Amino acid sequence: MSSHSRVRLGMVGGGQGAFIGAVHRIASRIDDRFELVAGALSSDAARAAASAAELGIAADRSYADYAEMARAEAARPDGIRAVAIVTPNHMHAGPAIAFLEAGISVICDKPLAATAEQAEKIAAAVAASDAHFVLTHNYTGYPLMRQARAMIARGDLGTIRVVQAEYAQDWLAGNVETTGNKQAVWRTDPKQAGAGGSIGDIGTHAFNLLSFVTGLETEALAADLHMFGEGRQVDDNAHIMLRFAGGAKGMVWASQVASGCENGLRLRIYGDKGGIEWGQENPNQMTFAKLGEPKQILTRGGAGLGGGAGDWTRIPPGHPEGYLEGFANIYSDAADLIEGKSDGALLPGIEAGLDGMWFIGACVESSKADGAWVKRG
Amino acid sequence: MSSHSRVRLGMVGGGQGAFIGAVHRIASRIDDRFELVAGALSSDAARAAASAAELGIAADRSYADYAEMARAEAARPDGIRAVAIVTPNHMHAGPAIAFLEAGISVICDKPLAATAEQAEKIAAAVAASDAHFVLTHNYTGYPLMRQARAMIARGDLGTIRVVQAEYAQDWLAGNVETTGNKQAVWRTDPKQAGAGGSIGDIGTHAFNLLSFVTGLETEALAADLHMFGEGRQVDDNAHIMLRFAGGAKGMVWASQVASGCENGLRLRIYGDKGGIEWGQENPNQMTFAKLGEPKQILTRGGAGLGGGAGDWTRIPPGHPEGYLEGFANIYSDAADLIEGKSDGALLPGIEAGLDGMWFIGACVESSKADGAWVKRG
Amino acid sequence: MSSHSRVRLGMVGGGQGAFIGAVHRIASRIDDRFELVAGALSSDAARAAASAAELGIAADRSYADYAEMARAEAARPDGIRAVAIVTPNHMHAGPAIAFLEAGISVICDKPLAATAEQAEKIAAAVAASDAHFVLTHNYTGYPLMRQARAMIARGDLGTIRVVQAEYAQDWLAGNVETTGNKQAVWRTDPKQAGAGGSIGDIGTHAFNLLSFVTGLETEALAADLHMFGEGRQVDDNAHIMLRFAGGAKGMVWASQVASGCENGLRLRIYGDKGGIEWGQENPNQMTFAKLGEPKQILTRGGAGLGGGAGDWTRIPPGHPEGYLEGFANIYSDAADLIEGKSDGALLPGIEAGLDGMWFIGACVESSKADGAWVKRG
Amino acid sequence: MSSHSRVRLGMVGGGQGAFIGAVHRIASRIDDRFELVAGALSSDAARAAASAAELGIAADRSYADYAEMARAEAARPDGIRAVAIVTPNHMHAGPAIAFLEAGISVICDKPLAATAEQAEKIAAAVAASDAHFVLTHNYTGYPLMRQARAMIARGDLGTIRVVQAEYAQDWLAGNVETTGNKQAVWRTDPKQAGAGGSIGDIGTHAFNLLSFVTGLETEALAADLHMFGEGRQVDDNAHIMLRFAGGAKGMVWASQVASGCENGLRLRIYGDKGGIEWGQENPNQMTFAKLGEPKQILTRGGAGLGGGAGDWTRIPPGHPEGYLEGFANIYSDAADLIEGKSDGALLPGIEAGLDGMWFIGACVESSKADGAWVKRG
Repeated sequence: MSSHSRVRLGMVGGGQGAFIGAVHRIASRIDDRFELVAGALSSDAARAAASAAELGIAADRSYADYAEMARAEAARPDGIRAVAIVTPNHMHAGPAIAFLEAGISVICDKPLAATAEQAEKIAAAVAASDAHFVLTHNYTGYPLMRQARAMIARGDLGTIRVVQAEYAQDWLAGNVETTGNKQAVWRTDPKQAGAGGSIGDIGTHAFNLLSFVTGLETEALAADLHMFGEGRQVDDNAHIMLRFAGGAKGMVWASQVASGCENGLRLRIYGDKGGIEWGQENPNQMTFAKLGEPKQILTRGGAGLGGGAGDWTRIPPGHPEGYLEGFANIYSDAADLIEGKSDGALLPGIEAGLDGMWFIGACVESSKADGAWVKRG
Repeated sequence: MSSHSRVRLGMVGGGQGAFIGAVHRIASRIDDRFELVAGALSSDAARAAASAAELGIAADRSYADYAEMARAEAARPDGIRAVAIVTPNHMHAGPAIAFLEAGISVICDKPLAATAEQAEKIAAAVAASDAHFVLTHNYTGYPLMRQARAMIARGDLGTIRVVQAEYAQDWLAGNVETTGNKQAVWRTDPKQAGAGGSIGDIGTHAFNLLSFVTGLETEALAADLHMFGEGRQVDDNAHIMLRFAGGAKGMVWASQVASGCENGLRLRIYGDKGGIEWGQENPNQMTFAKLGEPKQILTRGGAGLGGGAGDWTRIPPGHPEGYLEGFANIYSDAADLIEGKSDGALLPGIEAGLDGMWFIGACVESSKADGAWVKRG
Repeated sequence: MSSHSRVRLGMVGGGQGAFIGAVHRIASRIDDRFELVAGALSSDAARAAASAAELGIAADRSYADYAEMARAEAARPDGIRAVAIVTPNHMHAGPAIAFLEAGISVICDKPLAATAEQAEKIAAAVAASDAHFVLTHNYTGYPLMRQARAMIARGDLGTIRVVQAEYAQDWLAGNVETTGNKQAVWRTDPKQAGAGGSIGDIGTHAFNLLSFVTGLETEALAADLHMFGEGRQVDDNAHIMLRFAGGAKGMVWASQVASGCENGLRLRIYGDKGGIEWGQENPNQMTFAKLGEPKQILTRGGAGLGGGAGDWTRIPPGHPEGYLEGFANIYSDAADLIEGKSDGALLPGIEAGLDGMWFIGACVESSKADGAWVKRG
Repeated sequence: MSSHSRVRLGMVGGGQGAFIGAVHRIASRIDDRFELVAGALSSDAARAAASAAELGIAADRSYADYAEMARAEAARPDGIRAVAIVTPNHMHAGPAIAFLEAGISVICDKPLAATAEQAEKIAAAVAASDAHFVLTHNYTGYPLMRQARAMIARGDLGTIRVVQAEYAQDWLAGNVETTGNKQAVWRTDPKQAGAGGSIGDIGTHAFNLLSFVTGLETEALAADLHMFGEGRQVDDNAHIMLRFAGGAKGMVWASQVASGCENGLRLRIYGDKGGIEWGQENPNQMTFAKLGEPKQILTRGGAGLGGGAGDWTRIPPGHPEGYLEGFANIYSDAADLIEGKSDGALLPGIEAGLDGMWFIGACVESSKADGAWVKRG
């Protein structure tokens, strides 16, 4: 008998033509901790069935409707133990609540929801359920971001003073939402994406990551949002100032119109004893400067880390891991959590989701109030 | 009925404590084209069984002996169609020949073998078999290396003049083979590794990669090999000059004692119209300079590539892929080849393996002859 | 008879123990356009004389008092034609006005003055004088910054949308002003430096540079200034949001407590057709991305620039120039201006100085008003 | 009376249209240690006079002939104490010997001469003269190269094992010598340049620098030289293997046909305890890895250097210095030497020049002998 077991996984969304669903599937496979066995991959029944067949999901476990899927899978002895929700933002709450109520753990794409109301309902369902809830703020899965978090927690940087976070892309520099780009259409539609454009899609990643790494609690923010794309209804560029409990200050820049930027998530943190700098596009190295000493280049799993990054990596330093492996760390940790092997302390969950919703709402509110500071309630 | 099928895969070697076996398994999973169902994971029966159980391989398909595995799997209607051979070099030939004779395709780690005799026998078995043979020179799976190959083939660099390849590590800077490091023990033992140390372990990767990308045929080489580690029996540093058909010249530096280098495989190629430069540790970008124009930064799947790298990638530019995804490209191409969906033109096979064996032998011969040029026969 | 002539130069400040005076002297020498012949190098007479002797200034042209120097030099047939003012900020106005009134051109360190009142008086003196006034915002002398300005002016980036400027140092991370560091003492003393700390010392450089390069007119700013150093009386970290005429937006971060940062002046500019990115610490290259094309690495005087940077450089591309050569470009342009060989269109002057004073004042005002937007009057 | 004095300097070569002469002049001015007062700037009398006038050299100290200049200047009470020789290689010996015999110190561009015979004659003149001889292998003037030398000397890298040096340019990728480029004409003409092309012009720099930094003595080399330019008479690409006393090994690559390379002088040195890597195009930083610890980024004059680089720099870390400042360090050290203030221990002199001549000769000899090892006599 095999000592090996995989968590049986379902998926809502992610059918043909989708983007992030495929990422979730690869992430779930990399460490061989999940088995995809069921799906409601599309609200279009034919597309759902075709997508399921392509993915090797048995026909009787391809559902056209997430509610039916939750019921049916909960009733099967070999039913799924977790579901990945990879639909547009406004379609997170429905399935999340249905599966949580069915006792099935949820791995949900970010941001948590399109509206605060939806978010609250999900939070209530999480509170009422014995099942787990994981939000895929995947950048927290990068080993060096976890390393940075551990270093800051143990005081390597001293008291944090300044945080600079940014996430710059250029794919919305032109008005691609008018040319049939599906990803652009829903992300620029406030009904599907929510009130935030770039702040919701990528700004929340930057905000989540800086919170995860520094452990700082945000007290207030002031934001200047803008729509450069002609006729665009949500922000495509955001300038944000932050104030943290304890006196640290921060800035966040999120943009989807920064010509020449591909996926420029960067994080820089400065304390009174040292500073770190990291960029997602070359995620296998991070610099660390102790004040008054030469800057060091820390590499993923490399020399002198003293534990940390090496715990979440598969191959030796110098062999680059990337976005998918970082995402896989979230999935593998989720498997541990679901199987009761860990408490998932590093995993972003409902609190991170609510933080993100506050961030989006506060940015919009502040910007409408001409950049007035919005305090965390 | 599902349109989805996976290639049934077996593995020889790769049991508990091994390194490259786990890499092969992840690479085979990433694109969901393989299913690992059988193995002779260790020559130690207990370890083989325990390793199989950990990996979810059914007990009756865990073999203590590769020959038995080849016979048994060939006889099963649901037998494996491919086997990954991830043993030390001197243990490639036996299983490779056994499986090829059984009609089962072989995906073999590099270099091809420990000796020229073993290599010739494998080549004969490949020639005699209808099954396929793939050698995992995985660095050819990096999208930008395939991009570079296409660019050179279509003349973007003009006539190639100079090739600079290097592969620098430092993990053998100390004598770790005397301290129980299993990877170091066999790699520095000529009986297991063959006559080449660094030239076999990493030099062949550099040589294979430069040949793959440039398409140049090597005419001769001159080598100066050295063993810096005390009492070491194989080279840990190699300086090599190359001459190519048509007049181009090259240099290769391979080292496992370059303090501070993790896995520094770099390739630089200069033609009369342009040059490219790439390093494996940040594999998602490559520079390309047309003579007399500003240097460009080409990114994996990024703007302006006009096809190429985008064909072998899973996620948008700016989302880094790494070593495992490059390795997965070899596996996914192998699946296509085995399933008859492609002719595997980009895959390294037996010819690349024989080239590598020539390279190792010629380096050793030249170095013994005080760096005299050794011509390709 | 020689066709060669040098502008006779004097200096106020810059005696023993000073920093920026030596920089001005080297900058004035590099292109051999100036000859330092007079000075009031210190308000301490002995130090002034000793400093003059060290620099080869004749004893009778070493003055203990700038007013006397202005009078005496104006009266000499071989008197100075220009004076460099390199005193702390609160000591700019006195000598600047004295020399301007004496008909001697002024090359003044930045920021313009310690207070708005002083600045206005200098401006009045400039308006009333036939002599020239140059403010050494030296970063505008970097060839690639002038290249960037020309590219933006001719539309290479399209309509500018977003500007990110930052200037991060760490030399005030500790309270070095309490340990006798002369540079720190006056720069953190509002009586000498003015109301701005980091915003005056380095923030004005960032603001000047972004204005110079983009040509954008600032409409309003919102600032959050902070003093992290214990007991410090001026800001050592500043977060600023900008709004420009025409709708572009910007952010400025200035810090002197960013542990690990040496002199991190960076400028990034994004338009609807392209973007550029540049950092002062490696000033010989700048990236330029046309939207939808690979990013280019432009080098100082390098291939494909089509004029521009090559006009302000001395040596071929790949031979790095640095801070002193950029500073020398300001001096050489000033020589041309003073000798009537150019109109000094690229030189920062009194307008740039007043802009900087507005910037400092508006930052302080906004920060006191909890980050309210302060409009340009 | 002034405590300031400048070394009176003359120049041979460097008239209108020349390149390196202007570099020498700027380098001599930066630290204000020299005063250019005489010259034989061109063998063409009219050009010599016009060039002198442009440079502010008095007409009676502009000479059409170096021999006359040596005589006349030696006879003047205010005659030059040093002369810079900036002619093509074959024109070094004549003036060098003439000035040395006249008791005037010589600062000579590299390589030492066009032929071994000329070199020997210069060496004899140096031996016979009380005047000093400095060869401008200017890259040894970079602060971080001096830092590296000091670090290696004190054992920071342990026993040196491997040296990788390269110097890659592309300005001769096309046959520019046929299109009137004066620099290319003489550098590709063996009568003026000597037997070496790229090995003489830039390879000697790489060889000198690696010798300077490591202190290693070369025992033998094997070279493969090539002329890619059509009809070119000297090498434009060189591949060289080195063996050092004590067992270290090295490689040198010099190329003037590496498309896309501007002035890529790089040096990498690996010992059994650590390694350093540096590139001239961004000379203000160098990495240093102690084996088993994170790599450090050392900056010119930056944190934690413990002396060293900070001794030869003018401005704080983060303010980049470049090629001209490195060159100026050679000049300023030469001033100290000439004025008896130091013994010039760091200055390249006649020994370095003879080493370079051996290097050129050995490369040519080895290459003609199909890459046979040529031993140092």
